[in-house]
Amino acid sequence: MAKKTKAVVLGVGAERGLGAAASRRFAKEGYHVLVAGRTGPKIDKVALGIRNAGGAATAIVVDGTKEDEVAALFDKAMADDAEGAPTDLLVFNMGNNAAVDFREMTAQHFEDSWRVGCFAGFLFGREAMRRLAPLGRGTVIFTGASGSLRGRPRFAAFNATKGGLRLLVQSMAREFGPQGIHVAHAIIDGGIEGERLLSRMPDRADKAGPDGLLNIDAIADSYWHLHRQHRSAWTHEIDLRPYKEPF
Amino acid sequence: MAKKTKAVVLGVGAERGLGAAASRRFAKEGYHVLVAGRTGPKIDKVALGIRNAGGAATAIVVDGTKEDEVAALFDKAMADDAEGAPTDLLVFNMGNNAAVDFREMTAQHFEDSWRVGCFAGFLFGREAMRRLAPLGRGTVIFTGASGSLRGRPRFAAFNATKGGLRLLVQSMAREFGPQGIHVAHAIIDGGIEGERLLSRMPDRADKAGPDGLLNIDAIADSYWHLHRQHRSAWTHEIDLRPYKEPF
Amino acid sequence: MAKKTKAVVLGVGAERGLGAAASRRFAKEGYHVLVAGRTGPKIDKVALGIRNAGGAATAIVVDGTKEDEVAALFDKAMADDAEGAPTDLLVFNMGNNAAVDFREMTAQHFEDSWRVGCFAGFLFGREAMRRLAPLGRGTVIFTGASGSLRGRPRFAAFNATKGGLRLLVQSMAREFGPQGIHVAHAIIDGGIEGERLLSRMPDRADKAGPDGLLNIDAIADSYWHLHRQHRSAWTHEIDLRPYKEPF
Amino acid sequence: MAKKTKAVVLGVGAERGLGAAASRRFAKEGYHVLVAGRTGPKIDKVALGIRNAGGAATAIVVDGTKEDEVAALFDKAMADDAEGAPTDLLVFNMGNNAAVDFREMTAQHFEDSWRVGCFAGFLFGREAMRRLAPLGRGTVIFTGASGSLRGRPRFAAFNATKGGLRLLVQSMAREFGPQGIHVAHAIIDGGIEGERLLSRMPDRADKAGPDGLLNIDAIADSYWHLHRQHRSAWTHEIDLRPYKEPF
Repeated sequence: MAKKTKAVVLGVGAERGLGAAASRRFAKEGYHVLVAGRTGPKIDKVALGIRNAGGAATAIVVDGTKEDEVAALFDKAMADDAEGAPTDLLVFNMGNNAAVDFREMTAQHFEDSWRVGCFAGFLFGREAMRRLAPLGRGTVIFTGASGSLRGRPRFAAFNATKGGLRLLVQSMAREFGPQGIHVAHAIIDGGIEGERLLSRMPDRADKAGPDGLLNIDAIADSYWHLHRQHRSAWTHEIDLRPYKEPF
Repeated sequence: MAKKTKAVVLGVGAERGLGAAASRRFAKEGYHVLVAGRTGPKIDKVALGIRNAGGAATAIVVDGTKEDEVAALFDKAMADDAEGAPTDLLVFNMGNNAAVDFREMTAQHFEDSWRVGCFAGFLFGREAMRRLAPLGRGTVIFTGASGSLRGRPRFAAFNATKGGLRLLVQSMAREFGPQGIHVAHAIIDGGIEGERLLSRMPDRADKAGPDGLLNIDAIADSYWHLHRQHRSAWTHEIDLRPYKEPF
Repeated sequence: MAKKTKAVVLGVGAERGLGAAASRRFAKEGYHVLVAGRTGPKIDKVALGIRNAGGAATAIVVDGTKEDEVAALFDKAMADDAEGAPTDLLVFNMGNNAAVDFREMTAQHFEDSWRVGCFAGFLFGREAMRRLAPLGRGTVIFTGASGSLRGRPRFAAFNATKGGLRLLVQSMAREFGPQGIHVAHAIIDGGIEGERLLSRMPDRADKAGPDGLLNIDAIADSYWHLHRQHRSAWTHEIDLRPYKEPF
Repeated sequence: MAKKTKAVVLGVGAERGLGAAASRRFAKEGYHVLVAGRTGPKIDKVALGIRNAGGAATAIVVDGTKEDEVAALFDKAMADDAEGAPTDLLVFNMGNNAAVDFREMTAQHFEDSWRVGCFAGFLFGREAMRRLAPLGRGTVIFTGASGSLRGRPRFAAFNATKGGLRLLVQSMAREFGPQGIHVAHAIIDGGIEGERLLSRMPDRADKAGPDGLLNIDAIADSYWHLHRQHRSAWTHEIDLRPYKEPF
């Protein structure tokens, strides 16, 4: 049997979530997926689900805001070992999102948001570029949001985080695209039909109507397409939204 | 044998061109393609090539700037007849591009550019929406350019045309997305490795280096992906550029 | 008495309108204003009002969609004659705006919208650049709208027109800025407190509340600021909106 | 003598710098300016210069990344005391800018950049909104850069900082504009003819040619214009660049 290649998804949570869906899709396409996230039981479940379905996956507990943990994740990802060949497909999917009256917002909240959604993206991106640039190949996808493009009342922390991440990713794309690394940014514009949203707002799916929330497998399908693009026609930024979503 | 569904590509020219590549791809995916363009011999060749490869295609000479000819094209496209079932996949690929010193630019040049690249897009879009909205389905893709987003010295006519087309398409997307029609705009950012560019600038491919020009099949692959997207996660605007292209 | 310099405002209508307000402001600053528009009685009234207030103004009936009429306007504007010295301040303020269901939109409506709002802008811009470039100075301001940036259901014609104008203006700015001509684009985002809006929707001002519509003199104030900017710190695009306007 | 109103400029450095120029302009317009920055001798010199020219200014050493110091600055700014009435004009002008190979960039560098250019902007903005919202008035201007809009190789930290600041400011504008606070963002696109640039690259001014770098007083002039705008026609984002600057 041919050795699999590794894929990395950082920011995996519930099985019914975008990180998990991307992991499953990459496994289905033949990758050995490093399923990385903060919460052991959650990522174990995702990895187990992949293995039960005949795929290959390893759960790795990682705090993406810690430089040494991110470096260790990349050491594994780039190793040519029993789990597979060095990765050429990576997804950064971390980030929080909460509405807070701006005048009540604490400095801690603002900083935490940035650390999880932007600083961690820097660590992930830098480790990726350090290791992929010498090889001249690889796809690195970052999950963005409509908040990456437009400020919105009560979302100052989220906007500052996502706006920062977007420009960071654009800088990387311009620096490393010509070196053969496909750096892409996905604008998720709408509610994701996943655990996080539905546990907080159970009636949101009903309100949105059929296909009114982004299906996680549908998002993963576009992530996969980004990876499959020929290097003569790469997409840097793609927007994804439900057909009904006003924009 | 199951009946094929029709696809429409308007703005097909040389076999080595984006319109032809999209036509071939859709035929390969099982569509009966209406290959539409101004120049009979060119589109005949494209359609013949598709048929020789086992696909289904019909060449139709259409001046996309003429309201009645565009309506007639849609009459064919929406008919349920021997060629196939009513179309659900349409591409508008018309447009010229020429550098002209602004002060030397004639009103005729400015108007011609608009008529071919923007007014024709209106006719195409309106006929499409008229006929698809009652059905609540269909994908309509418009080919844009970096000039759709950024003005550039000596490209005032092209910029005005493409900038107009982009906003026209965005208006359609916001009006008809909620009605189930996927209206998408592709920003082609770079030189296309096709007949038009290479006949004018034969050394351009060499200068650009390997994969330095957009491969037409690679573009068609992303057009196909747009069509295949689940309606809960549609892309409205996608950029496509060679990995080396500065942006 | 020192000779005045001429200013040109094309697209002047009612006294209570942006074109008229810009004309009055420029006159107040010492310009001899060429008040240009389609409707003789309207522009006569504006010019008379300026003269009655002690300013200098000449009304000129011009159809801005006619190449020869625009050229004649510029012949006057650039002449060094009894009315004043050649112009260095020009405003293009033409354009219509109407909501139309896209499927009902006629080709004539789409074309008329473009001709008045974009093609006329081309004629105005080209004549301006032809005559100002050799002198290496001058400010040329184009009135845009939120529709220049965002497509909106039922505004396909307006969006295509304004989107085209915006990119046209950007192309000019990049071609002629380095030659010393300040080409600027103003995004008017909101309802203008003028005759056009208030005659159609008399209750609109009440609904908007105090300062909820753009005051025409306030807009003119920013146009004047654009003209006064030092060439080391020019603005190309400025947005103007009421403090309450959501955006 | 009528009591002056206070203005605040945070991020003042050398006399030949944007912060100092804004301070001088506001003093000239009759404000008592709180000249705030990290380096005592520098801001003392700026404040002394203003007083020597007949204006009113107080130098205040503030580390804008420290929550308590920023709060203390605002306590002074909002006090109605001997120095003047509570402020209605505030400028945030902090930020660094350095080219670093992305793969060599330390986490410390990335974080420091953010802390000075984005986190400090949050502290400044929040204190401003907390105190101005109850009053329903005030102008708060943030200095941005071309790097706020476009990623660039080797400027990942700067881009992430400025991209974050921009969206933060946009969120504030949308939350507090309707409450009567004018929140504006200035995109400085080009080199500033100030101490910082010229001490590092002495030949930069020569290379740029006459007016090829942004004159600091010219920038301050547009800041003043933003403050003077009528609330029915506020600008949220203004770009400022030398006439020769490619963009």
